[in-house]
Amino acid sequence: MVGAVPRALLFDVFGTVVNWRSSLVRHLSAFGLERGIEADWVSLVDAWRGAYQPSMDRVRRGELAWTVLDDLHRSSLAALCDERGLGLDGAALDRMALLWRDLEPWPDSRPGLARLRARFTVAPLSNGNVALLVAMAKQAGLGWDMVFGADLFGHYKPDAETYLGACRLLRLEPGEVMLCAAHNSDLAAARALGLRTAFMARPTEYGPAQSRDLGPEQEWDVVVGSLEALADRLGA
Amino acid sequence: MVGAVPRALLFDVFGTVVNWRSSLVRHLSAFGLERGIEADWVSLVDAWRGAYQPSMDRVRRGELAWTVLDDLHRSSLAALCDERGLGLDGAALDRMALLWRDLEPWPDSRPGLARLRARFTVAPLSNGNVALLVAMAKQAGLGWDMVFGADLFGHYKPDAETYLGACRLLRLEPGEVMLCAAHNSDLAAARALGLRTAFMARPTEYGPAQSRDLGPEQEWDVVVGSLEALADRLGA
Repeated sequence: MVGAVPRALLFDVFGTVVNWRSSLVRHLSAFGLERGIEADWVSLVDAWRGAYQPSMDRVRRGELAWTVLDDLHRSSLAALCDERGLGLDGAALDRMALLWRDLEPWPDSRPGLARLRARFTVAPLSNGNVALLVAMAKQAGLGWDMVFGADLFGHYKPDAETYLGACRLLRLEPGEVMLCAAHNSDLAAARALGLRTAFMARPTEYGPAQSRDLGPEQEWDVVVGSLEALADRLGA
Repeated sequence: MVGAVPRALLFDVFGTVVNWRSSLVRHLSAFGLERGIEADWVSLVDAWRGAYQPSMDRVRRGELAWTVLDDLHRSSLAALCDERGLGLDGAALDRMALLWRDLEPWPDSRPGLARLRARFTVAPLSNGNVALLVAMAKQAGLGWDMVFGADLFGHYKPDAETYLGACRLLRLEPGEVMLCAAHNSDLAAARALGLRTAFMARPTEYGPAQSRDLGPEQEWDVVVGSLEALADRLGA
């Protein structure tokens, strides 16, 4: 059981709330079919996600000025398509890069969030930018009270500015806020700053051979298998 | 008719979406009754709102470091209660200052917004801070896609940073965004920056003797009498 109940819940999004891998594979395959482009879309998606942390690292280290995730996604994709000899023009890359706005929620995300929102303030705290997260929420039917994109802070998680910035804007102490995530490293950063933590396993986020984040690596305040289970645990 | 349809609608909140005057009078009267405090609550509310622009002006001119509206409201209220000899302790002032989170929407706001949200991205663009606006939306049942509080920008309207900051976060050009407000001055600032404009008359916002903003003072892109009429005009 959690001790005192938090007042706000912040959610990691990619992997925790939405299933990026199978959504992107499906959308890219449809796109390829439409354009008559043959490619190994699964491997492209895995490589694209593989470029995610390194691209943000360049911003975190100050090698690259602040750049929103929409644009990091586009440049990683352009490089990968180039390497693979997929002849895609700028308009095609623009459209593909925005497919991150069309990711599908895990089956428990929408109903779990709706229950949690009736009792708590709920918001994403994501490395996605506001426009990406707003568009995703609209098409996926996710109801948020606020949208904390990384561009509000000019920092990517796990920089402290993101977690503490969201607490400051909500005018809550870190101990009144719980981060809910499928990634131990995200929770570790939040806990170090005084936030509460809920781990939600998403054992197929990276596909059938996933080797990381299969279970909790610390004694998080709450450990559950879905957003609906989180709603049960928090009495929502 | 509007020319090309905008992609996002930003709403002024105090006066445009919610009826601050009658809500505050009602809440303060109930509070006074509960505590056995007699006061002219109508005149207090009018004086409190009268302190709104001057308090933000101190921030706009740089005389006061960035201060969120929750805190400006509290210090204006403390000064007014002091002048009027209402002996209220700090806890009472804290509670009263947060009554701005409990304002009621005009009757057309909730249904109008719900219709508009099905077609457009809708968000407040308010001098209220994020925590105030999020709490208000939850208790009033207002559905927003994003919440643009002034604390995201460290500036109060009509500073350009607020209007352009919201466009930047939405990744839209100013011409793709429409400001909807009951105040000509707010719309004039938005239009000067390239945003589209919708005027919505709220002729009793300041009570029965209201003398300003009774009608449009420029040829705004849209002029309507309610949020439902705005939904009609924009085909939502």
